[in-house]
Amino acid sequence: MAMDGYRGFLGLLVSALLVGFLSVLFTLIWVLHYREGLGWNGGALEFNWHPVLAVTGFVFIQGIAIIVYRLPWTWKCSKFLMKSIHAGLNAVAAVLVIISVVAVFDYHSAQSIPHMYSLHSWVGLTVVILYVLQLLLGFFIFLLPWAPLSLRALAMPVHVYSGLLLFGTVIATVLMGVTEKLFFVLKNPSYHSFPPEGVFTNTLGLLILVFGGLVFWIVTRPQWKRPKEPESTLLQSEAMEGAIAISSGNSGDKSDSELNSEAAARKRNFGLDEAGQRSTM
Amino acid sequence: MAMDGYRGFLGLLVSALLVGFLSVLFTLIWVLHYREGLGWNGGALEFNWHPVLAVTGFVFIQGIAIIVYRLPWTWKCSKFLMKSIHAGLNAVAAVLVIISVVAVFDYHSAQSIPHMYSLHSWVGLTVVILYVLQLLLGFFIFLLPWAPLSLRALAMPVHVYSGLLLFGTVIATVLMGVTEKLFFVLKNPSYHSFPPEGVFTNTLGLLILVFGGLVFWIVTRPQWKRPKEPESTLLQSEAMEGAIAISSGNSGDKSDSELNSEAAARKRNFGLDEAGQRSTM
Repeated sequence: MAMDGYRGFLGLLVSALLVGFLSVLFTLIWVLHYREGLGWNGGALEFNWHPVLAVTGFVFIQGIAIIVYRLPWTWKCSKFLMKSIHAGLNAVAAVLVIISVVAVFDYHSAQSIPHMYSLHSWVGLTVVILYVLQLLLGFFIFLLPWAPLSLRALAMPVHVYSGLLLFGTVIATVLMGVTEKLFFVLKNPSYHSFPPEGVFTNTLGLLILVFGGLVFWIVTRPQWKRPKEPESTLLQSEAMEGAIAISSGNSGDKSDSELNSEAAARKRNFGLDEAGQRSTM
Repeated sequence: MAMDGYRGFLGLLVSALLVGFLSVLFTLIWVLHYREGLGWNGGALEFNWHPVLAVTGFVFIQGIAIIVYRLPWTWKCSKFLMKSIHAGLNAVAAVLVIISVVAVFDYHSAQSIPHMYSLHSWVGLTVVILYVLQLLLGFFIFLLPWAPLSLRALAMPVHVYSGLLLFGTVIATVLMGVTEKLFFVLKNPSYHSFPPEGVFTNTLGLLILVFGGLVFWIVTRPQWKRPKEPESTLLQSEAMEGAIAISSGNSGDKSDSELNSEAAARKRNFGLDEAGQRSTM
């Protein structure tokens, strides 16, 4: 990466982290200052975990998980390590969002409020289920070493598309949730009289949108993509001499060095792989 | 495009058109059957133009405008014609959405309801303004022949990114609008008692999301992109013999044939152009 591109990347990364951090902070201030605070009592305090965990896990941590391959100083780390971090962050996000959903169901049950009637809840539950599915499929297809490369090449564009679609839908769901909550609670003074809580929480909504926009920009710049395995170039030129190594590492129980030869093996699937590459936008 | 890819494309295109059409139909049924109908009287009938025009123009027509370059049977048409159709559809969408915003402001004024207090209105007005800006910039940079190719190459990735981000944000805004409206009007029976209108309009929200997902899939498949100008290949090989022609067409008042030589001229800006291409995902 040229120094110029590197500075641009750093600027956007710092902006994304800042705006993401502010989103989490604003959510905390919202529930702690404007609402009743946090607790696990079947009441409003328990409900309040819902926005806090959803914004922290499903927006901020998921956003970071999406751009983690783009950090240039991780390009010397093994692809397997980076995949593990990507999967780990998404797993943490999944756990947090599941707790956030439990908090709401628990609150509704305790207060005898019906479940799952709003558009927010329909889209939200769908997206949580699909997110867990995406996580499991990603784990089995890309992290575990047993999936054939042809399956990986076929699944990669779908994985990238689903991941970004889910992230975008999560943001839409959060904005619906904010809207819903503000119309519920801002009665006196009413939301339409511009009370501080309304203006503050609208601003939170804008911050979340900007965070999403920054993540989308960072992840769709082709020049900021992790380069194809540098080790594999070495491995491949060794293979050129050894001739047999290049056709290994296609399936079965892979060692660490075999994982590194994936890129070499993929050169044989060039068409498919190129499609996968470009679909990362 | 191979026959296989062509069938896949057709299937997805028909699905997108169907789901988009259903979204518009559901919105019409919502306001005509469940709400009070349409009119321009400062009351609820005037407000109802807001969802109808927003879903028709800002969701459906904008979605079609985004994928219009992907229709294989248009690849023999000139790039200029396709740009005009793309710009024309976006202009129609802009006009419809501006009328939809006027309807709401008019309704609010007539009913003495304050303007611009909700998150939906903040995000919605921002997105309308940015959409008009995107339209104007697109018109001056890409449709009119005067912008230098270096500017076009620089602006293209931003144009594509902004366009898709705006489209996604429009969908989020519509979902907030639906949420807001349902909590307003579904009092007796309440939204949480699963009245037919609530279930019906939640379904509308899901349809709009699915439409967005289909448009995003179609537009981000690299194999469904319009091929680089076929005429330019001819023009370029002619230029190979003429040697001078290849450096023409960079700026100034362009004739139609000069527009066709854009692709040839762009080969000189390969790095930038490639970035632009790939950023279309």
